[in-house]
Amino acid sequence: MDSMDNKKDNEMKINKENKMKIKMEYVDGGVTAAAGFLAGTAMASIKKPGRRDIAVLYSTVPATAAGVFTMNKVKAAPVLLSMEHLAKGTARAVVVNSGNANACNGLQGLQDARAMAGAAAEYLGIPEQEVLVASTGVIGRKMPMAKILPGIRAACAELSPTGGDLAAQAIMTTDTFPKEAAVRLELGGKTVTIGGMAKGSGMIHPNLATMLCFLTTDAVITAGALKLALQYAVEESFNMITVDGDTSTNDMVSIMAGGLAQNVRIEESGPDYELFREALTEICVKLARDVARDGEGATKLLEVVVLNASSERDARLAARTVSGSSLVKAAVFGCDANWGRVICAAGYSGAEFDPERVDIFLGDEKVAENGCSLDFNEERALEILKRDRVVITLDFKAGPFKATSWGCDLSYDYVKINADYRT
Amino acid sequence: MDSMDNKKDNEMKINKENKMKIKMEYVDGGVTAAAGFLAGTAMASIKKPGRRDIAVLYSTVPATAAGVFTMNKVKAAPVLLSMEHLAKGTARAVVVNSGNANACNGLQGLQDARAMAGAAAEYLGIPEQEVLVASTGVIGRKMPMAKILPGIRAACAELSPTGGDLAAQAIMTTDTFPKEAAVRLELGGKTVTIGGMAKGSGMIHPNLATMLCFLTTDAVITAGALKLALQYAVEESFNMITVDGDTSTNDMVSIMAGGLAQNVRIEESGPDYELFREALTEICVKLARDVARDGEGATKLLEVVVLNASSERDARLAARTVSGSSLVKAAVFGCDANWGRVICAAGYSGAEFDPERVDIFLGDEKVAENGCSLDFNEERALEILKRDRVVITLDFKAGPFKATSWGCDLSYDYVKINADYRT
Repeated sequence: MDSMDNKKDNEMKINKENKMKIKMEYVDGGVTAAAGFLAGTAMASIKKPGRRDIAVLYSTVPATAAGVFTMNKVKAAPVLLSMEHLAKGTARAVVVNSGNANACNGLQGLQDARAMAGAAAEYLGIPEQEVLVASTGVIGRKMPMAKILPGIRAACAELSPTGGDLAAQAIMTTDTFPKEAAVRLELGGKTVTIGGMAKGSGMIHPNLATMLCFLTTDAVITAGALKLALQYAVEESFNMITVDGDTSTNDMVSIMAGGLAQNVRIEESGPDYELFREALTEICVKLARDVARDGEGATKLLEVVVLNASSERDARLAARTVSGSSLVKAAVFGCDANWGRVICAAGYSGAEFDPERVDIFLGDEKVAENGCSLDFNEERALEILKRDRVVITLDFKAGPFKATSWGCDLSYDYVKINADYRT
Repeated sequence: MDSMDNKKDNEMKINKENKMKIKMEYVDGGVTAAAGFLAGTAMASIKKPGRRDIAVLYSTVPATAAGVFTMNKVKAAPVLLSMEHLAKGTARAVVVNSGNANACNGLQGLQDARAMAGAAAEYLGIPEQEVLVASTGVIGRKMPMAKILPGIRAACAELSPTGGDLAAQAIMTTDTFPKEAAVRLELGGKTVTIGGMAKGSGMIHPNLATMLCFLTTDAVITAGALKLALQYAVEESFNMITVDGDTSTNDMVSIMAGGLAQNVRIEESGPDYELFREALTEICVKLARDVARDGEGATKLLEVVVLNASSERDARLAARTVSGSSLVKAAVFGCDANWGRVICAAGYSGAEFDPERVDIFLGDEKVAENGCSLDFNEERALEILKRDRVVITLDFKAGPFKATSWGCDLSYDYVKINADYRT
């Protein structure tokens, strides 16, 4: 069963439909790995002093751009502004701050987000409409603009082609490690690079979360194709992770494509589009897994695979619900091979399946067959549960569809981190 | 705002539509408070020795009956059996065991559930089809029938009109206190009693949970009216509580009506029906609140009220989602007045509302107005959050609909209890 393989992160991904192998390799760096992108950061003491809390990302050339935003009805001001600015499919810069979400701040919040875009635009000499804004942190606090505006200018002054690593640090909140990745692939004889950075780590759930991800590429691609590819990639990655079921007001994934790779322009279909889309999906899955692994208080990555479902929807629903179940997550934290909670969560997920046909595996140990308990090896199950990556597989034995969802265990530290976040 | 009143549990409930006052009072006892009902218990060492883990409930006269069952696609054997036995709208007895859920046990599970009904039927001299069965405990373990069948006979031998209290204890799993209640009301000059017992306390979520509730009444009522009233009451009570978002395989609420009160028979509409339904709802809300308050690891009851929504659906969705948010629950545990998480959860609930019109209250302290922060009194908010019942109110200012949902905080102990439940 391929889901059981201990996949290395740099393993090549197989195109699901065509089984087309993509020639692709992971390379160092993140958001400044692609040609033409610079990043700069600053310490603006937004929540507390002494840490980088502003990042500016800049494309030295005009770029097509696309974004995917939170489905939450309550959208933070920077989300509303970035949606507006992305309407025409181009962007040159992104301004990000951590420490304050600029959500639920009314008209003032929108004015502040606009001022942030304006400060970067003025420094960089580009139209304000070409600047996206993202914020993460506490909700319902006024933005300390007297610190933020000078911070944006300071970050712009530091823009550099090696600024990606510090930028990945500046956007962190309760994340315990920075998340960045870059891949390189060949498209018609040209080398294309895609890079990105992301942050979690509470409120992570399907349809995004306080999850920010910024991607860049030097590919030549139409705005339409870029948007399609991004939507596909997010569906397979960030929308398949869950930490605690909360979808935030501020989530956003954006991508800018500057075109310095000089490949033949990627349109909305064809082999080049598919290659690009798969590479983008690969990097998004990598970043999403890192976000899940770094969920608040998490001690391990939980990967839930649903095999042989009768529809894509059923596979996705069941995988996401199992990986999001508090009872499953607590059992994984406690290394308790309680597969009953797994089938129970699948049962209330809304997915169609026959409970009397389901097989369940912990790693490669089959613990239930046709919905009934097996006399499985408890010691081996314990060994598997002690790993820092626990794979639970449900085989519905009903059709050809498969889905994977990522989450994390539920630990004492999750409660600790979230019981008093504001102070 | 009436939701802010510190309602006493025995306060009279106001009929929502007619504002009709019901003459009703709480009385001592639970499931044997109504005339004609007996309960007996036994210690069968199902999970561990030394505790009552079997309860039998018996109507000395033929009774109409109704039930509501888990929406989980994976239904435990006793649920399947009880659904079958309730099809004709009558029942005389209920057999309940704790310590094993008899879920995911395949054909054997169904045979075991049938044998449990059979053992009680034989002892009591009633048809097997008149016996309902309920189980709660670990999933996927074979039932220790060699202990259970003698246990059922022992419980039958102990049947008594004062057996309700011990029965409420016998059905507990991780519950920290037994949950029972009884009310008395006048119907056309006759005194009718309704009593019940319930157990939680993990996996509590809308559409039931490992939540069992058994109700009895001496009212004369048709099977159809009984079912309608029960569905209504469950919708307002057990389907509005949440502990951890997991809906179990075993949930069940049942009611038997023996008719010894000799009131004029209650049909599916009319004033008597409404009075009975409101009294039943009252007792179900009382038991549901107790279940929420006793959620695994809970230190306090969380009550979320949504006022002035534009539809019932919106009010219910928002109330349930806020009370089920891990981030809200952790903030309540930590006494952190983080109202941003409240509006955020409402925002992803799927409820329609205008984020820029919402007011939010902690107790009677308004913390947000029109979706924006207020300079509220943090000390007073802290005081409110320290209570053992915390009320959060969202005023959508959009329409006439209201809903209340109950949950609990998320504590270290929730993780502890669930990290290693099986052992």
